[in-house]
Amino acid sequence: MTRYRITVEYDGAAFVGWQRQDNGFAVQQALEAALYAMSGETVTVFGAGRTDSGVHALGQVAHFDLAYDFGHKDPASTIRDALNFHVRPHPVSVLDVVIVDDEFHARFDAIGRSYLYRIANRRPPLVLDRGRCWRIGSALDVAAMHEAAQVLVGKHDFTTFRATLCQSKSPVKTLDRLDVERVADEIHIHAEARSFLHHQVRNMVGALKWVGDGKWTPEHIKNALQARHRPAGGETAPAEGLYLVSVSY
Amino acid sequence: MTRYRITVEYDGAAFVGWQRQDNGFAVQQALEAALYAMSGETVTVFGAGRTDSGVHALGQVAHFDLAYDFGHKDPASTIRDALNFHVRPHPVSVLDVVIVDDEFHARFDAIGRSYLYRIANRRPPLVLDRGRCWRIGSALDVAAMHEAAQVLVGKHDFTTFRATLCQSKSPVKTLDRLDVERVADEIHIHAEARSFLHHQVRNMVGALKWVGDGKWTPEHIKNALQARHRPAGGETAPAEGLYLVSVSY
Repeated sequence: MTRYRITVEYDGAAFVGWQRQDNGFAVQQALEAALYAMSGETVTVFGAGRTDSGVHALGQVAHFDLAYDFGHKDPASTIRDALNFHVRPHPVSVLDVVIVDDEFHARFDAIGRSYLYRIANRRPPLVLDRGRCWRIGSALDVAAMHEAAQVLVGKHDFTTFRATLCQSKSPVKTLDRLDVERVADEIHIHAEARSFLHHQVRNMVGALKWVGDGKWTPEHIKNALQARHRPAGGETAPAEGLYLVSVSY
Repeated sequence: MTRYRITVEYDGAAFVGWQRQDNGFAVQQALEAALYAMSGETVTVFGAGRTDSGVHALGQVAHFDLAYDFGHKDPASTIRDALNFHVRPHPVSVLDVVIVDDEFHARFDAIGRSYLYRIANRRPPLVLDRGRCWRIGSALDVAAMHEAAQVLVGKHDFTTFRATLCQSKSPVKTLDRLDVERVADEIHIHAEARSFLHHQVRNMVGALKWVGDGKWTPEHIKNALQARHRPAGGETAPAEGLYLVSVSY
């Protein structure tokens, strides 16, 4: 058996999320089906983060074991190309395959996750970025959003910003980075932490949108955080603007 | 009658091109149908550039005349929103509407066109940028491509790089800019001129790809230009990587 670590890009709109669900097709299943088609082996693919339905990935990381002997000098590249061949027509692309130690675990060994949230701050409908951003027609105050975001950086009880269905044992997480910047007519929100609660990034972005609208101040964000109560936290930003950018080990 | 100038974004994949054709639906028709639905007037929309089938626009410019009185303080914004409402579900978005002088002509008054060509220089298939770039799996030498591109800048007879069906009276054009740069795992080619011949940008990009591959040198580009013969010019880059970025007046 050889353990492989893969880096994967996908369009979240086509899936019920990373993980297998009763209500549709998951990214994990697309990869497992491709692995079966390629090797005849029934394999479980373990991902670093269970992205929600609609959430995209630029660099999700996962691992799996294969007994299959490729008989090539470069089995990693062979697997990458074969997986990409078999995973079509699903919108999933295997960017990289590396042979790793048998002890490596994509989820438990991860020490950092980096997310990007894209807001298209324009009134006309999106065309080329349709399904890739949250379009907000009214002007947002990016400086105020960035200032308010800093209230959330650090170690906090994030109960206000976790989904009520979140299964994490503890609501306490350390947020390492939450930067808000304008990039042409988009607003990019960069979030980094060792790990996140369910819906945490989307809920934080939803609250920051209220700051951008002038409806909330950084003080409101502080009060919301201290309330430790989801209804105090504002709205949930849509999944289509969220990207899992990278996972570090 | 009032003349309006509009700036338009579209996804070229959905259309036979900007201009009305016998073999399918054109961007021009989508806009004319939306104008008819909005005002009841049968209007011709004149575009600055006749983008080919599959070519995208970030900032195509067009004009049309309307008798319709909107009875608003801000008719331009009203038309923009109403056009966007009626043009759905076509992948066209009206970014901007401005009232202009009755003499303004989107095509004849244009003094510059700016195009972007996006190459995704990676082996794995595209997912989030599927249909938005020309994917080339082998490594390209961007410095060599940029150097070779400079041979084409200036006033030349571009017969080698025009489509054999091109209807322009003269093959002589002045190319103001042809820059090749690497942007993460993409290669961006920026082309600017007062006007271009049919397929000129795609044919120049196709020839530069041969330079990037090491198959051609800048000397080959020079010889190709001097040959004034389309078959001497190499391949035609696919439409899906090309964007009409802006038109200047």
